Amino acid sequence: MERMKPRTLSGFMELLPAPQTQFERMLESLRRTYSLYGFTPLDTPVIESAEILLAKGGGETEKQIYRFTKGDSDLALRFDLTVPLAKYVALHYADLTFPFRRYQIGKVYRGERAQRGRFREFYQCDIDVIGDGKLDISNEAEIPSIIYHAFTSMGLQRFKIRVNNRKILTGFYDMQGLGEQSGDIMRTVDKLDKIGAEKVKTLLIDSGVSEEAAAEILKFIAIVGSNQEVLTALEGYRGRNETFDQGLDELTTVVKYLSAFGVPEDHFAVDLTIARGLDYYTGTVYETVMLDHPEIGSICSGGRYDNLAEYYTDKKLPGVGISIGLTRLFYVLGEQGYLNDDLVTAPADVLILPMTEDLGPAIAFATQLRSADIRAQVYGEQKKFKQKMSYADKLKVPYVVFLGEDEISKGVVKVKDMVTGDQTEMTPDQAISAIGGKLAEMNGLTPIKEKAE
Amino acid sequence: MERMKPRTLSGFMELLPAPQTQFERMLESLRRTYSLYGFTPLDTPVIESAEILLAKGGGETEKQIYRFTKGDSDLALRFDLTVPLAKYVALHYADLTFPFRRYQIGKVYRGERAQRGRFREFYQCDIDVIGDGKLDISNEAEIPSIIYHAFTSMGLQRFKIRVNNRKILTGFYDMQGLGEQSGDIMRTVDKLDKIGAEKVKTLLIDSGVSEEAAAEILKFIAIVGSNQEVLTALEGYRGRNETFDQGLDELTTVVKYLSAFGVPEDHFAVDLTIARGLDYYTGTVYETVMLDHPEIGSICSGGRYDNLAEYYTDKKLPGVGISIGLTRLFYVLGEQGYLNDDLVTAPADVLILPMTEDLGPAIAFATQLRSADIRAQVYGEQKKFKQKMSYADKLKVPYVVFLGEDEISKGVVKVKDMVTGDQTEMTPDQAISAIGGKLAEMNGLTPIKEKAE
Repeated sequence: MERMKPRTLSGFMELLPAPQTQFERMLESLRRTYSLYGFTPLDTPVIESAEILLAKGGGETEKQIYRFTKGDSDLALRFDLTVPLAKYVALHYADLTFPFRRYQIGKVYRGERAQRGRFREFYQCDIDVIGDGKLDISNEAEIPSIIYHAFTSMGLQRFKIRVNNRKILTGFYDMQGLGEQSGDIMRTVDKLDKIGAEKVKTLLIDSGVSEEAAAEILKFIAIVGSNQEVLTALEGYRGRNETFDQGLDELTTVVKYLSAFGVPEDHFAVDLTIARGLDYYTGTVYETVMLDHPEIGSICSGGRYDNLAEYYTDKKLPGVGISIGLTRLFYVLGEQGYLNDDLVTAPADVLILPMTEDLGPAIAFATQLRSADIRAQVYGEQKKFKQKMSYADKLKVPYVVFLGEDEISKGVVKVKDMVTGDQTEMTPDQAISAIGGKLAEMNGLTPIKEKAE
Repeated sequence: MERMKPRTLSGFMELLPAPQTQFERMLESLRRTYSLYGFTPLDTPVIESAEILLAKGGGETEKQIYRFTKGDSDLALRFDLTVPLAKYVALHYADLTFPFRRYQIGKVYRGERAQRGRFREFYQCDIDVIGDGKLDISNEAEIPSIIYHAFTSMGLQRFKIRVNNRKILTGFYDMQGLGEQSGDIMRTVDKLDKIGAEKVKTLLIDSGVSEEAAAEILKFIAIVGSNQEVLTALEGYRGRNETFDQGLDELTTVVKYLSAFGVPEDHFAVDLTIARGLDYYTGTVYETVMLDHPEIGSICSGGRYDNLAEYYTDKKLPGVGISIGLTRLFYVLGEQGYLNDDLVTAPADVLILPMTEDLGPAIAFATQLRSADIRAQVYGEQKKFKQKMSYADKLKVPYVVFLGEDEISKGVVKVKDMVTGDQTEMTPDQAISAIGGKLAEMNGLTPIKEKAE
């Protein structure tokens, strides 16, 4: 018969078992963290009506979206989890309780030009808090504290959450008489990290900003220092614009609460260059950078918005949220050697090798192990001993248990620790407690392991 | 601004938070069960090249598939998890260890005609064991034993796994001189449950089977009784056809091992009418029915196949697997009132209501709760007391903690059990241990609760 060469589309991540297991551990860790903070899990369709997804319109989105027809329906694959959330909240408004706190972990699709480290299918891991009409400022401090917990739980320590407030920027540009252009200016300023101050200034002047105003802008975004120093410098602008003053109040509150929420001072920084290139953020905005890999850009971004679902409802639904692009992050961590290879990635903790034809005793012991929450596999193939051991080696199972006539008649099992090579005869109960204890240690390991500096 | 009416496509399940939480519990339970039996998690793209997915071809599949172009690419959404597995194993053959045991839980897409209880996007939860060249018969008994564990872990007890062997059927039809037509005949016999014996006979005769052969077929599929009785009746046909004899040996072995694997005799039955309407099964086949709802049909099916990836590789890769269509099962369970409403579906176990302006103490206690693995939310909105309590009521949080000046100065928290209404003042440590204990009980509940008979 004619055969087709198997392939996976480029831009689509497909992992081998060991890295897949590391990836699952991260998903599990994020689900756990998000749950601990009182977020409810949500799942929405990958396919939606195209007009629903594109209600807002917009250039890049329309170009990248996977859109197609089926029968009479004009359909598309979701390109983020925010638009589906907006639809969900507008549609189920009457059945939800506000503030509505949800997390959603799911795949989204963007037909970007394929390039190394860019994915067309990738996981987003989002949390959002949506208020009905109002939403307290404390939420804007809680969100980055959850992200802090999320990353540290996965084993990542060397990162910094950068915080800013759009009202401060809007207010500042109003002061300069540049209110109309503030959106464009912020997009330009957003490039500071990539292109440097001089180029930003040139771009600003090219776009019609006066030399003086451009100088003022560069002076403003050059304000750096400890969080307290930056806030103090900003106080110097107070009293000239209402929006600015409001933004400064908010930022001051967020900084205060961030400490209360337990985020260490060295893990967040007020950074006036952060604007997020999206028009819909209206207050606090966040980015997260890896200290040792600033070139990667933000690994977790988000912010406060005033109107989540304005395209679907006249209800005012302010919210705040943040998103981790896990597929890209995982790729980057792998590239940088940050994935913890000490993690057990074998499909089973214990591989039982029956040395008798009757699999009964092996199956019975496997059942006992599973009752003790230990992952067990009975190797049932008729193979030579050497091949069985080679299977255990390749899978990297931490323990192998031999069960032959001898052991069965003595009521014991022979346990081989595959790391140390030690072989010990024990009763089944002893084996379960010994293996269980060691596994508890191993399973305490985080999926990310930073390299020693 | 003009608004668009929010909607979700028909045939796509989108759940409210409480049922979504029940659904997540089932996913979690299945992931746990599959892991305990030594299966490795796998994830493959939702989008594949259309020619890869359709390598096998076939009528229904081609009609139902979501297929579209993006740029020059002819793409499609996966319609099951088996074809992607075949591609995966063929593509990554050199990097895998066989027997390769994987589970995959993911969404698949079929553009079926929309009707109640039928979904176009649904979760499949699959396990498969793939051998390289050979695969021991014991795997064919292990698979249903895992399914037994999977269902009982979720709280479902009243179900039966029906087992048959395609070789017995093929051999039997060969004996009748109907080898050529056996595929068509099996598809007809498969309808027995739905249309009854008389209609099956008519259909068989219409399709060219002789009256005598049709009578033989009906006599054969009428063999019922205990597993031992059925096996004994089948022994009566032994010695006339090699394939039949081989199938009978296999079935006898599977029945023997199923007991060893701990599946109670009343949870599985040899059933000669099961053929599975798919051509690619070659040995043991399974279906699972709910005893009180046979009208639903099989909730978990699968079987043994000899050549998983023949469209992509010349390697012979026999396997055995089974699939739970969780979206449909969940829908059915909901319809029948089988979802356990005693399960905690609130986003948090504890809602902390700070009665002071400073949220610091509330946040600190929330952090303590989370360290003890208790899901906690601080209610930070500036609302009246009554509104705060109404929020707790609507979310159905099991515990509310009040934290006012009084409590803070005394170093205590006031805990309200929302089920009993009891309010108790405790130290934070006492509260954590009391709440933790109760939650351990509640979290032991299964997501499915069968109604008393």
